[in-house]
Amino acid sequence: MAIRCPAFFGSEMPSIESGALSPPPSPLILTQDELKKIAAYKAVESVQSGMVLGLGTGSTAKHAVDRIAELLHQGKLKNITGIPTSKKTHQQAVSLGIPLSDLDSHPVVDLAIDGADEVDSNLNLVKGRGGSLLREKMIESACKKFIVIVDESKLVAHVGASGAMPVEVVPFCWKFTQNRLQSLFDYAGCVAKLRLSNGGVKMTASDAILRLAGVVEHGMFLDMATTVIVAGELGITIKNK
Amino acid sequence: MAIRCPAFFGSEMPSIESGALSPPPSPLILTQDELKKIAAYKAVESVQSGMVLGLGTGSTAKHAVDRIAELLHQGKLKNITGIPTSKKTHQQAVSLGIPLSDLDSHPVVDLAIDGADEVDSNLNLVKGRGGSLLREKMIESACKKFIVIVDESKLVAHVGASGAMPVEVVPFCWKFTQNRLQSLFDYAGCVAKLRLSNGGVKMTASDAILRLAGVVEHGMFLDMATTVIVAGELGITIKNK
Repeated sequence: MAIRCPAFFGSEMPSIESGALSPPPSPLILTQDELKKIAAYKAVESVQSGMVLGLGTGSTAKHAVDRIAELLHQGKLKNITGIPTSKKTHQQAVSLGIPLSDLDSHPVVDLAIDGADEVDSNLNLVKGRGGSLLREKMIESACKKFIVIVDESKLVAHVGASGAMPVEVVPFCWKFTQNRLQSLFDYAGCVAKLRLSNGGVKMTASDAILRLAGVVEHGMFLDMATTVIVAGELGITIKNK
Repeated sequence: MAIRCPAFFGSEMPSIESGALSPPPSPLILTQDELKKIAAYKAVESVQSGMVLGLGTGSTAKHAVDRIAELLHQGKLKNITGIPTSKKTHQQAVSLGIPLSDLDSHPVVDLAIDGADEVDSNLNLVKGRGGSLLREKMIESACKKFIVIVDESKLVAHVGASGAMPVEVVPFCWKFTQNRLQSLFDYAGCVAKLRLSNGGVKMTASDAILRLAGVVEHGMFLDMATTVIVAGELGITIKNK
């Protein structure tokens, strides 16, 4: 389901709010970072007191973590437990005073909010170009709800379309594993097939990669996101699974 | 294909040879270690000079590595390059003077010889109870030929029948991953299904395990062994794929 919302702008973002409520005579040009912030703030509206929250990693998720801390300090949110998806986010959350835990202590996560490198029309993602692939996947596959926040530059027709799909491998003989991955793609034409919208093909490619001994995880997040919030020049689009 | 060979005994094992050529009046009782040695020596007959060899890990594979070194020192084998599947085997091979390399330098392995924890009638294996799962799987999936050597106690109707199936996970939140694995089995009944002979079910269970973020590898070696050599009280059985 896709809902297009041209008029969402948080009260903490006055310059954007004015743009929404009374369009300026000249076009309002938003920076990519402002778009990321809009998506992040919209996602944080879904956070409720008492939740265990997966805290994402990257320039977009950073805005969400900032916003959660802000609402905690304002007393609008209480009793939040954050599960950071990276050391960097852990540091950010600690510096902002967000109480933290981990999956061992909190194996069920109510909601995760994170960015993505790519989002396709079926809410499949490529993530991990920022280097936090494994923790993100573990935490976000443990979520009841997973909201992905992106600016519109991350939208692709099919995952794998815009660049590399990260694969995390064990250090032991990594060059060998790299060559086997390359062979897998050469032989089966998986690079091309990954760009098809056929979910079965993606899952087959996913399994083929995971079957390679030496591979820990890959960056396709298939059928995991429950909501994608896309911020663009014309407003916010919310897509629900 | 299965060949039952009641009369193979290597020339270096005189006590067994005499048993084969002229059965003693009383039953010859072989220890489990002697059976392992018989299987190992038989496997090493397939080694040819110039080969890149995967060197297995464990009490049975150890005999094969010993035998390869012996033939090298006797000049019956030359120009062997060993790829050890564990640090322990690395140490053994170094101490025996076997030249070693790795998969990065030798991505194609001519032959690997290794033991297994379980072998089913379709030559599917459970391995890794000895703790060398990942390296073994990487090397043995890179082999042109993979000879598995076991005593008959390792034969099972279906893999998973005799005990635990090892799964290697990342240290990060391993308790969480352990619980998810348990849930996977509880929910899908995979523990029971793994004991079925249906290859498709096994592959499905295999993929389901590998899809869990946090899992690096599991101990099912499906469709990898090309030959299994089983040493038993009545002689050797050789099964080829």
